Amino acid sequence: MRSPGMTLRSFTPEVDGPQRLEELLARFSACGATPGGGVTRLCASPEDGAARDIFGDEVRAAGGNLRVDAVGNQFGLFSLADQADAPLVLMGSHLDSQSLAGRLDGTYGVAAALCVGAGLMRARRAGRRFTADFCVVNWTNEEGARFRPSLLGSGTYLGRHAVAEALSCRDESGTTLSEALDAIGYRGGDAPPPRPACYLEVHVEQGTVLEETGRTIGIVTRNWGATKIEAAFLGVQAHTGPGRMEVRRDALLAAAYAIAEIRALADAWPGLLYTAVGRVAVTPNSANVVPARVELSVELRSADDTVLAEAGRRADRLLDAAAARAGTGLTILARNERPIRAMPEAVCDLVAVCAEARGLGALRMDTVAGHDALSFLGICPTGLVFVPSIGGIAHNEAEATDPADLAAGLALMREAADRLCRSGGDPVRAARPEHAG
Amino acid sequence: MRSPGMTLRSFTPEVDGPQRLEELLARFSACGATPGGGVTRLCASPEDGAARDIFGDEVRAAGGNLRVDAVGNQFGLFSLADQADAPLVLMGSHLDSQSLAGRLDGTYGVAAALCVGAGLMRARRAGRRFTADFCVVNWTNEEGARFRPSLLGSGTYLGRHAVAEALSCRDESGTTLSEALDAIGYRGGDAPPPRPACYLEVHVEQGTVLEETGRTIGIVTRNWGATKIEAAFLGVQAHTGPGRMEVRRDALLAAAYAIAEIRALADAWPGLLYTAVGRVAVTPNSANVVPARVELSVELRSADDTVLAEAGRRADRLLDAAAARAGTGLTILARNERPIRAMPEAVCDLVAVCAEARGLGALRMDTVAGHDALSFLGICPTGLVFVPSIGGIAHNEAEATDPADLAAGLALMREAADRLCRSGGDPVRAARPEHAG
Repeated sequence: MRSPGMTLRSFTPEVDGPQRLEELLARFSACGATPGGGVTRLCASPEDGAARDIFGDEVRAAGGNLRVDAVGNQFGLFSLADQADAPLVLMGSHLDSQSLAGRLDGTYGVAAALCVGAGLMRARRAGRRFTADFCVVNWTNEEGARFRPSLLGSGTYLGRHAVAEALSCRDESGTTLSEALDAIGYRGGDAPPPRPACYLEVHVEQGTVLEETGRTIGIVTRNWGATKIEAAFLGVQAHTGPGRMEVRRDALLAAAYAIAEIRALADAWPGLLYTAVGRVAVTPNSANVVPARVELSVELRSADDTVLAEAGRRADRLLDAAAARAGTGLTILARNERPIRAMPEAVCDLVAVCAEARGLGALRMDTVAGHDALSFLGICPTGLVFVPSIGGIAHNEAEATDPADLAAGLALMREAADRLCRSGGDPVRAARPEHAG
Repeated sequence: MRSPGMTLRSFTPEVDGPQRLEELLARFSACGATPGGGVTRLCASPEDGAARDIFGDEVRAAGGNLRVDAVGNQFGLFSLADQADAPLVLMGSHLDSQSLAGRLDGTYGVAAALCVGAGLMRARRAGRRFTADFCVVNWTNEEGARFRPSLLGSGTYLGRHAVAEALSCRDESGTTLSEALDAIGYRGGDAPPPRPACYLEVHVEQGTVLEETGRTIGIVTRNWGATKIEAAFLGVQAHTGPGRMEVRRDALLAAAYAIAEIRALADAWPGLLYTAVGRVAVTPNSANVVPARVELSVELRSADDTVLAEAGRRADRLLDAAAARAGTGLTILARNERPIRAMPEAVCDLVAVCAEARGLGALRMDTVAGHDALSFLGICPTGLVFVPSIGGIAHNEAEATDPADLAAGLALMREAADRLCRSGGDPVRAARPEHAG
């Protein structure tokens, strides 16, 4: 375990430490603040634009170089190594939020990365030598709240979506991502930075595993698989009055049958399968009109491949059965499968070494939720770090984390970034004792 | 039965007849026309404003006097009687529509009344004597598609709602009726005309009774009762990922249980009870968020008081049970009960006499749907006349009526209006042989 004194060699707590982190979080939280203490900062909304402005100001103030790519991803590049084409260490998360969401989800990871970047620049000016550059990133549309799919910005950066395809995603009112980014001035023209040597992200857990085990740091070793189905039931629009019950083709009734059955599906594998329908879009959605069309978003999540595959098959059958029972048509609009994958060992080990160095109790664990770090799986070394969520409350204004835990996560990310940037971005080398601060 | 020649004494078909009616319907249909051949003309939308402009132009062109009251009801007053404070015969319907609705619903009744008004003015100028004035009306927000409750304009005119209360109704985006009317220039400052001696409305049936019985005219003798419940399930917003199934409080799941049970309720009284949930409002409505709040609009309709009362009690219990099963709260936001009532005999008899005079096969029947004419029940003599709907299709772009049936309905309304305006607006006197054209 390293002494606090050693930390001061690379970071200056009063400008890059917990106090600075809290101040940054407070500034971001003001963008789309809700009366309930949370935020509504949908992707590419004016509130998101305000938060992006703060991101840009912070990058420039810390001596970084700002780039905004074609889908609005913001990159803050910090030149640390004295060489052209130095390897890059990328760290960040997202500033967009769900409606009536918490202030930390995504934003914590971005704010922490900004503090880390400022600290590394300060250390470099003080004479510390690095062999990799550092970059902070704010990914566009991680949440999938306004535009679907989620993880859109990081997925596009890594070539999982074409730029044109991403820009043509539409929100419920028909506005494209392209139009929304234009409206806030964030459809950029800069080339994104090259693929990094390593990507790291810190996030609030959004569950209760760390709280229940009394640990401060979650080292994510695996993600749960997810099957996401966008389905539409196609009924016949009719008056709810004179239209007799037996001739109705009620798309909302079909959706209701499906929602109840999707919930029941989880009971077949207690604790092993999570299911949800969080979104419906009803047309025309008027009290006295039999709905003509109902779209719904079905989610299945499991850590077991076999369970997820069988649940997917059952979901298909129960959607068909719901349509048949209500006499409607059914169309599958999209089907997205996120496989269960292990996070790279080397990055997990590096995080474990850093946690130990900082005296932080760590636990290897799964992530059930998706995060931008998962977009990097199979492309480059990537790590995902959790800090505890009080009561596991997430996607809710009451989401919270103990400030001491936020500070601990920041300290860990600093340690990891410092090691990586002095190891050419190689997590194996960074974990070695000679790279300790 | 009267000969066609006699008709020409009071009306001039080429300017006030079926051709004129079709032309007017075509002009109204252009306001909010949909690719599918229907209209989307929500109350106080720009499209509604365009249709209102046509109404105003038509009233003025026919020599009428236009008034717009505080809630946007448009009245076209035609002075026929040579006396101050002459009794008034009121005829009309509504120009607002559901989304993706038919072009005739409401609009037919307004267009027919405009033709009737123009014809009566022409007859007066030709020397015909009247003892009542005539007024055409376009009621605000009959549909209840944008603002709830439905029948808002006619209900406010008759004192069933206070003006301030009506103006403060909000659409789903939070816009008040007052703001929406202001935006299209139709929050009027005119006093509405005094209560009429008689109100008459012609409407497409929206069912298949006339088609199945081969009749042209439906004389509505009774309305079905309706119980409308606006309920909200109150869950706990959470991430659909790390949030375990057993701790969820999913408001959409509660709504799904309720929607399925409300449908099942109708099976307890086959053919005697119609039930529907046509509208839900989900918050926050995002694919990966457990819904915090779901509002839904429940409708129960029956021609049997006992059935409707028992169904209402069962609906209350099943809403409670749905909330309990999903672990959510439940709030009843509004409960609106429209009683089953008979339409006044005298007006029904007058319509029957007019149908016979025009050689039109008529049938006494119920209305399941609500119409503005029902707002007048218990206040003044009121009549509601149906013409057939092809296949009973309603609240759907494919809604249609044979042009010959539209013409027949217009001829009947002319006959009734002419008789009423020569009988001081008294339906009993108007039905007497001496008032035949």
